[in-house]
Formats: sequence, structure tokens, C-alpha cells
Amino acid sequence: MQVGERNIRLVVAYNGARYHGWQRQADGLPTVQACLEAAAGRLLGHPVTVVGAGRTDAGVHALGQVANLHTTNRCFPLERFRRALDSALPKDIAVRSAEEVPAGFHASLWAVEKTYRYRIFTAPTKPIVAAGQVYHFRGRLDPARMVEAARRLVGEHDFRGFASAGERRANTVRTLTRCEVSEHEQEVHVTVTGNGFLYKMVRNIAGTLVEIGRRRWSPGRIDEVLASGDRKLAGPTAPAEGLWLMSVRYPENLSDERPAAT
Amino acid sequence: MQVGERNIRLVVAYNGARYHGWQRQADGLPTVQACLEAAAGRLLGHPVTVVGAGRTDAGVHALGQVANLHTTNRCFPLERFRRALDSALPKDIAVRSAEEVPAGFHASLWAVEKTYRYRIFTAPTKPIVAAGQVYHFRGRLDPARMVEAARRLVGEHDFRGFASAGERRANTVRTLTRCEVSEHEQEVHVTVTGNGFLYKMVRNIAGTLVEIGRRRWSPGRIDEVLASGDRKLAGPTAPAEGLWLMSVRYPENLSDERPAAT
Repeated sequence: MQVGERNIRLVVAYNGARYHGWQRQADGLPTVQACLEAAAGRLLGHPVTVVGAGRTDAGVHALGQVANLHTTNRCFPLERFRRALDSALPKDIAVRSAEEVPAGFHASLWAVEKTYRYRIFTAPTKPIVAAGQVYHFRGRLDPARMVEAARRLVGEHDFRGFASAGERRANTVRTLTRCEVSEHEQEVHVTVTGNGFLYKMVRNIAGTLVEIGRRRWSPGRIDEVLASGDRKLAGPTAPAEGLWLMSVRYPENLSDERPAAT
Repeated sequence: MQVGERNIRLVVAYNGARYHGWQRQADGLPTVQACLEAAAGRLLGHPVTVVGAGRTDAGVHALGQVANLHTTNRCFPLERFRRALDSALPKDIAVRSAEEVPAGFHASLWAVEKTYRYRIFTAPTKPIVAAGQVYHFRGRLDPARMVEAARRLVGEHDFRGFASAGERRANTVRTLTRCEVSEHEQEVHVTVTGNGFLYKMVRNIAGTLVEIGRRRWSPGRIDEVLASGDRKLAGPTAPAEGLWLMSVRYPENLSDERPAAT
């Protein structure tokens, strides 16, 4: 970072239906990161790299994705920059806030916890208001069984059995501080908070909880998947359109030092 | 109606963004009525006419549109017909219920009251969850002024000043039993119940209430529009995408006679 540069943190919301995920693609396919970099670059007058907290997959949505970018442009008051960026982006990407952060802040490396929500639409009729934002499960679910199963996922576990084939990291131990199933008017939500997530882990957890909710398996199946680490014992990967990145948590006092790994 | 015919009442929800309104068009443009008639006709094995309670305009949505159709096909249990029709329709049209009604029932002529809701999104950021389902007003609104103005619309009035040019009916007197403005997290809603509505009346009411809410006019403007019947004194027509037909009310006991006009 050069003298006079600013580091700006953005909170970004998007409907992921039209995008090939968050991450910029070499072949120029539309992604959320590429849209943000193009729009911010035009406004700021120089090439911009936008770093995201979580690389959401194709079709996954966000209400509280966090990103940061460095700029030498000091002409924009921050709220005017936020509004201009929000207007310059396609209608399915919104910028909810923009604030200056310490030079060393990095949206991914500094993240302490992320919260995802998986939305399952359970009415016998197609969703209209929530179309494209939920997974429509047409059978019957027993949420009490899902609550009991979700409880077993909280804590530090080896989540290897809930990772899809694309996961290449050697360490598959993660800590979930929250895994809750809640009932709403026409939906069942699975809300998960953790210090890190393996590839497709939330969708695999949601898919497994659905199998338990529909009475194909008992809640104890969770323990079997955790103990064996066997992906084949878990349920199918639930569709991308039901998944939302809700928020990313950072240390309350951002100093200019990267916080020690937890 | 022939002996053995059934008259089926449907409650239909749709996102109107892709449609040229409810009503079938001579030139084959996509409409909600045309989709319903095509899908129901395929399932029932004979040409079907679907009568709707309200002819929503292009881009207007519904959660509780009511329609009816006659069929000689007695093979389908009603819930199976509902589910098959819901599945056969495009993903932005849903069938929420199907029930048999007396032979003389007519979704439009028997309607006693309709309720519409106009949704105004007031956050400074583009809507993501509600995209395409709300009118995004980027300025500041004072809902208390809108509440005070809305109150003046309740009752029997000549609503000529709130009708758009396409209105050709001579009698422009209607009765609103409800006209309420309510605040929600990121939205202001205008909810209107009445025994009938003139062409674009709800959108013209919403557009006028926005002008009052943004302090361009005082709430007393409503009285001036009602007294003068002058369309030019009312506000602009609010965009179609914010309007929802919420419900249609019928007499509680449907007999086989059309109820007397009220």
C-alpha cells in the first residue's frame, strides 16, 4: 500500500442467479467480483482489485458479503462513492455500505466468522415472492428432527464427510458456533455460523438435514457422517439457489495488524 | 353450463414482470390468462376459458388473484388438478387453491371487494430480496403525512381525478373501505380495499401519496383532486412493479344466484 492510498471495506448484497459465482473467471464469464472491479475501476479511474470474504459458488446469493479494495483516488466522499457504485452495478448487485479501514485489512484473511442461511420453501405451491431465492422442497419435513440433528453439528469437528470433491485443503477440522433450524411461515431455515467452511459444506449439511427431516434417516446420521468422514453417508448437495451468505464478522477493533490466527 | 359440468375457482399468484398483464391478447403476447387457459386446457383435454376477478396491467403482480373455469372433465380430484396445473405453469405463476363453486359463480361479477397493496422500497441501496417486486423511491418519505392523506380517500368518492386516460366508464364513483399507509423495515406500503377501481387508480393514488410524503404537497391535496376530478392535480402514475393484487372477497355463502349488486 502506497502513501495516500485508502483501503475501503464494502458490504455487498446480490442475487447470484445470473452469475458464475463470486470469483473472477479467466474466460470472462459474468461474476460478482468482475462486475465490482469493472464498476469501481470506472468510477475511481484506475484498475481495482476487489477481495471478497467468501467465494460464493455459482447461483449462491449474499446479503452481507464483505469485500475490500485499495484506491489512490481521494476525490470521493465515501457515501457518494457507495451510492455511485450501487447505481453503476447491475440491478442484482447492491452496495450496502462503504467505510475506510486500516491499510492492512483483508476481507478474507481478517474474517473471524461467517454466517450462512439455507432457505427451504415448504408450501405445496411454487414460490412467487421468494422465487429463485429458496429451494422448493415439495414433500413434508419434520423440523423437530432437523433441530435435533443440527444440534449435533455445533462445536469443533472434522467436517470431511460434508465436503464435496472439489475440497483440497488437508485440514478439514472446523468449528461451528451455531447450527440452527427455524420454522417460518412457508419456509424452514438452516442458519450456520463458523470460523470456516469446506467446499459446499453448508449445502451438504442442508441436504443431509432435509433427508433427516423427511424421515429417511434419524438425527444420529449426523454422528455417523462426522465419525466416518464418508461423504457417501451424507445427503445430496442442496441446490445453490437456497443459499445466502448473511454476514461476516471481524475483530471489533481493527488495528493495522492482522489479527493472530484463531 | 351443461349438466355434469364443474365450475372451479382458483386462487392464483404471479410475478407479472414477464407478462403483458392478465388479459389474453389478440396478438399472442404472453399474458397470465393465456398461460392459465393453455395449461388448464392441456390437462383437462378441452378448450378452457378462465375468467379473472381483476385485469391486472402489464408488470403488476398478484398474491390472491381469483379466477374460475368450467370443465366437463370429472377425472381429476381437485387437489391433484391444482398440483398438476401449478406444475404445468411457468415458474412465475402459481395456483394456490382450487375448489368447486356453484355453477353461476363468476370471478369478476361476484367479487364484492378487492385489496391491492403498493410496495415502496425506501432504503438508499438497490433492493435485492425484493427486486422487481417494489418501486424503489430513493428520496426521503414522511409516512405520517401519507397516513394523514390516505385517510381522506376512505369512503364513497368520485375518483375521476385518480383515473388514467384509458378509463371509459361513465360512473367514476367508488367506495374505499380501507386506505392505509404502513411502515415496514425497508418499505412503506399503501393498502387499499374497495368495491371497484378505475383504470390505474391504485397506482395514481400511490404516486400522489409519494408526492405528499416527499413534502411536495400537503395532505389536503387529496381533497383538491377529489373535489375537482382533475387528473392533472394528482401525482404521476407509480410504476407497475410495486403493485400487488392481494385478495378478492366474495359473499360468504355462495348460492347459485348471482348476488344483487351493492
